[in-house]
Amino acid sequence: MQIFECTPIGFIHSPYQQKFGIPRQPHLAPAAKVTLELIAPYNHPDCVRGLEEFEYVWVQFIFHQCQTEGWAPLVRPPRLGGSKKKGVFATRSPHRPNHIGLSLLKLEEIQTKQGVRLIFSGADLLDKTPVLDIKPYLPFVEAIAQAKSGFVDQPPPILPVLWSEKALAVWQNLNKEQGFRLLIEQSLAQDPRPAFHQDDKRQYGMLLENINVIFQVTSDCVTIVDLLLVPTK
Amino acid sequence: MQIFECTPIGFIHSPYQQKFGIPRQPHLAPAAKVTLELIAPYNHPDCVRGLEEFEYVWVQFIFHQCQTEGWAPLVRPPRLGGSKKKGVFATRSPHRPNHIGLSLLKLEEIQTKQGVRLIFSGADLLDKTPVLDIKPYLPFVEAIAQAKSGFVDQPPPILPVLWSEKALAVWQNLNKEQGFRLLIEQSLAQDPRPAFHQDDKRQYGMLLENINVIFQVTSDCVTIVDLLLVPTK
Repeated sequence: MQIFECTPIGFIHSPYQQKFGIPRQPHLAPAAKVTLELIAPYNHPDCVRGLEEFEYVWVQFIFHQCQTEGWAPLVRPPRLGGSKKKGVFATRSPHRPNHIGLSLLKLEEIQTKQGVRLIFSGADLLDKTPVLDIKPYLPFVEAIAQAKSGFVDQPPPILPVLWSEKALAVWQNLNKEQGFRLLIEQSLAQDPRPAFHQDDKRQYGMLLENINVIFQVTSDCVTIVDLLLVPTK
Repeated sequence: MQIFECTPIGFIHSPYQQKFGIPRQPHLAPAAKVTLELIAPYNHPDCVRGLEEFEYVWVQFIFHQCQTEGWAPLVRPPRLGGSKKKGVFATRSPHRPNHIGLSLLKLEEIQTKQGVRLIFSGADLLDKTPVLDIKPYLPFVEAIAQAKSGFVDQPPPILPVLWSEKALAVWQNLNKEQGFRLLIEQSLAQDPRPAFHQDDKRQYGMLLENINVIFQVTSDCVTIVDLLLVPTK
């Protein structure tokens, strides 16, 4: 069997520390900023010369936390409430052959003073994600608004997000930036629970940077119950 | 250094037998039909269940004929006449780290009677291309018509294509389908010559299936000079 050896061109720094809570598509949480730090020999400013002319960039990466979990021919897309099965190649599931992901991210900034760092927004990438390639987005070939897209033809519904008094009190003592609050709210507004969980009494934790965001979802809104500071390793 | 081993999920059958003449982006030659033949264990109909709901599909593949040619930090995009250099990550050049390509193709047909074969149009893929992954195209996240795209903000110019009497006489004896004639014309209309070649007396050959298409380009049109039948291996 033919094998192609791929090596990372760089790694992602992201507030998302776990798969749970990561938006299921990019752009759903614009406040989710990540940094791609290129590694040698790709971290020379020449390699990204002209990239600043592009507003969006394709990031091809490895779903590194799913590699040991393998893949299956059929998956249950969250979009279909977890009840229907679709072929793995008809989904964007991370549990796929070769575990290669593809995300279209908005390029916010290019830093080339020491090595090369690209800052993206609207990201759906886990911390430490290995990146195999980046490419410019070409709207004249890749923006096909009318393309039929079956069971994923519109963004998922967005739920309102409320803060409990307790969570709000913790927030006010945290000394985090306002962007981090947006990140929490935008990540939760998409209802990150597994599709087959509909228990509105159950509490969940979503780890963002060093904060475990405790929340619960009732039929029509998300409530942030508490914020727990997690000791950094 | 971390290494990810990728194995093909299938291979492309394409009329394009050489890099020369392949459209520089997909869709530029809609008549270019290719077949992706999935290999075991990915060639089970379950793997593509539901894919028929999507009109366009991402194909992630290896630029296999460029692998031995390596990559360079700076490339000269054909779009810029070959005179200006851009960083490899600001281009779609095949001479890139990991040699991974990305094409958005129109899905025309799915055959699942014996194994799995996907038929795409508008392809820019070489015969025998190893494919690492396919994914559905999601217009609600991936169609961003207004995205700024620097030096590649519109399709390349299309030249008129004329047939010499000699070439036309050969064509009439070839017994090929009309679609193949369209493929020849659409491939040539984009002027496949290297950007730094502007010699309008020079003749070029472009190999499509078993036909070597001999052509030359004057300032404002392409002339098909001759068609040569190439013995199949």
